[in-house]
Amino acid sequence: MPEITVNPTRLLARLEALAQIGKIAHDGVSRVALSDADREGRDQLVAWMKAAGLEVRIDRIGNILGLRAGRENLPPLMSGSHLDTVTEAGRFDGSYGVLAALEVAETLNDHDIETRHPLVVVSFTNEEGVRYAPDMMGSLVYAGGLAVEEALQIRGFDGSILGEELRRIGYAGDVPCGEMAPAAYVELHIEQGPVLEQQGRTIGAVENLMGICWQEITVRGQANHAGTTPTALRRDAGLAAAKIVCFLRELAEQFGDTQRATCGMLRFSPNAINVIPEQALLSVDLRNSDPGQFRRAQQQLASYLETLAAAEGVVVTARELVNLDPVRFDPGIVTAIWESAKALGYPARRITSGAGHDAQMMARICPAAMIFVPSRGGISHNPAEYTAPEDLVAGANVLLKTLQNLDGVMLNA
Amino acid sequence: MPEITVNPTRLLARLEALAQIGKIAHDGVSRVALSDADREGRDQLVAWMKAAGLEVRIDRIGNILGLRAGRENLPPLMSGSHLDTVTEAGRFDGSYGVLAALEVAETLNDHDIETRHPLVVVSFTNEEGVRYAPDMMGSLVYAGGLAVEEALQIRGFDGSILGEELRRIGYAGDVPCGEMAPAAYVELHIEQGPVLEQQGRTIGAVENLMGICWQEITVRGQANHAGTTPTALRRDAGLAAAKIVCFLRELAEQFGDTQRATCGMLRFSPNAINVIPEQALLSVDLRNSDPGQFRRAQQQLASYLETLAAAEGVVVTARELVNLDPVRFDPGIVTAIWESAKALGYPARRITSGAGHDAQMMARICPAAMIFVPSRGGISHNPAEYTAPEDLVAGANVLLKTLQNLDGVMLNA
Repeated sequence: MPEITVNPTRLLARLEALAQIGKIAHDGVSRVALSDADREGRDQLVAWMKAAGLEVRIDRIGNILGLRAGRENLPPLMSGSHLDTVTEAGRFDGSYGVLAALEVAETLNDHDIETRHPLVVVSFTNEEGVRYAPDMMGSLVYAGGLAVEEALQIRGFDGSILGEELRRIGYAGDVPCGEMAPAAYVELHIEQGPVLEQQGRTIGAVENLMGICWQEITVRGQANHAGTTPTALRRDAGLAAAKIVCFLRELAEQFGDTQRATCGMLRFSPNAINVIPEQALLSVDLRNSDPGQFRRAQQQLASYLETLAAAEGVVVTARELVNLDPVRFDPGIVTAIWESAKALGYPARRITSGAGHDAQMMARICPAAMIFVPSRGGISHNPAEYTAPEDLVAGANVLLKTLQNLDGVMLNA
Repeated sequence: MPEITVNPTRLLARLEALAQIGKIAHDGVSRVALSDADREGRDQLVAWMKAAGLEVRIDRIGNILGLRAGRENLPPLMSGSHLDTVTEAGRFDGSYGVLAALEVAETLNDHDIETRHPLVVVSFTNEEGVRYAPDMMGSLVYAGGLAVEEALQIRGFDGSILGEELRRIGYAGDVPCGEMAPAAYVELHIEQGPVLEQQGRTIGAVENLMGICWQEITVRGQANHAGTTPTALRRDAGLAAAKIVCFLRELAEQFGDTQRATCGMLRFSPNAINVIPEQALLSVDLRNSDPGQFRRAQQQLASYLETLAAAEGVVVTARELVNLDPVRFDPGIVTAIWESAKALGYPARRITSGAGHDAQMMARICPAAMIFVPSRGGISHNPAEYTAPEDLVAGANVLLKTLQNLDGVMLNA
């Protein structure tokens, strides 16, 4: 197979064009799952896929699959990510992986290369989960971890029903979810963390991924007058919620580097300046790459919530939204990524992902792994998210070479 | 002057009727300032005032004044409170003081009693301040503490302009604010605290009132990915806000019984489950009856905010919304209340108010004091707010007798 590389101009121009869809201040992007902006982004992707000669298939959960035929009767190699974003996002999280996979297909077209396996470029529905929990939903359904009928009924934080919104934006497809079991899945993504930048590496071969536990915690106390109610008689739901937020930080410090603990959402009710909060609703995001620590952190939180409820005279209930164990990716693909980076002359290292990714769902049904490129300052989920153009091109070239290598290796997959 | 008492049936029936306006679940009431429900409540009061033969005057800030003529050319005795409520309120806070003052006027009518001073029944605009800060706004403007032109421009927490909403509900009057300087102001109110109930007293003669400081605190950090951002690199505005909430409780415990410290409002931004909060907006409500402690508590908070900003790598700014020193009421009126209660056979005590009241604004321009009746469980700013009917009637009788006594005493006021 000849040594070929992607077209940097085309890749960067498409990233730029996609970033105009749902554009917000400070060069940010807001394409929350199944919003109008998400629809526009999807329409653009489908148009590009068709122009590249891919066969576009939309499945029942709205995943977009672009199929490039292979020479032999084999299961496909699959690559992609997602187009949806958090509310105030940057331009690379997700989009980069989808457009780089499309760029791989176009590069193969440019050189009239016929692969042995078919190649599928995929964009999964609702990876971020900021509107509908759980996150990574499209790939979860694809991998058979959630029934599509159940997913379509999920009610969002804004009260909307996922299935209705999917119909509204025109992406309620009829292709059965997971109809193609891939030979392998490789996802290219920005790191969203500081490790590659700090260590001067261009490529991360992602060998494992942290477990993720999301909970929604409700604290019920008693509304009362902020001026007249003596401290000792208060049942302050807001104070109890604040103590939980502080406890999360202590937990992260106690468990050390492999642990993350975050409260991203918090709401008081009635939320009035002179009324002691009657209720507080908050989210918890716990992550750890070590399975034992992951479980112990959850147990310590549960035990803290019990102690707190008794001490503050409040009722605390926790509802689990997501609970995904740490994932170890396929060692063969990780090695293929590593060797591709080395062959192309990019400094690389093996790395752990702190973020959840569609690749972890696909790892349930096929060999899977991920490629990371650096994020400046480790910043992500923020309009300031940035990866240098040369790194974006490097990542796409490593993806291309890795898929070419797998196409040769996976003869008997 | 003959010994007369109020009509319990009429007073309780009107409290019941007013509680139907803006009624919410659990027998609660929601008549936020200048809302449609506030308008309805005002319309009902005006109708009752007119039926009682009072001359109704609406001033420029929307205060409703009902004038009952006196025999002599003297400044009026004034009594009342407010009809607006917090978002999820009970039925007595404010409304009781207005309707009891109206009941006093009607009782005097029933017995064809002509007082020496005119009597003014008043309902002040926006006492609660949950929509527009500062609270106690109508009485503040009446007392000359805030220019009416400035007040009418105030933007609410919901973005609305006070003057526009006042016009919308038809209560932008043309009477100059504060045109009548009263000979005395007496306000009847539920305690909204537990002291009278715990000590088995029916009447509180309120001799002083806590200072109130309201601040709006903004914390600015950096939005980032909840999974990939190491703990040490975080600038978490939500965590810093939670630490402020916890500090407020420590402050209250440190300063002891005269201190209150509350965070009633808190909002995160972007408020997404997997994004470290970039910004947090929270309210602080500090109260103390001791002027020195009141100032020291504010200083300690300011100093804590500085330390916190440095420790968490966030920017913290505090904007003062309200700052009212502790108030000492007129000893002569407090004694008149005490003696009226004794003469009527009600167990009474002198008491401090933890809540802010219109009486503290009126105390700037005339002798003023307040009468409290018990609140069951000390609960207020909550649909569960409750005062026994016999206590409601007792309070109104003490108000009647106090005003009659002042009418005789205040010969040379």
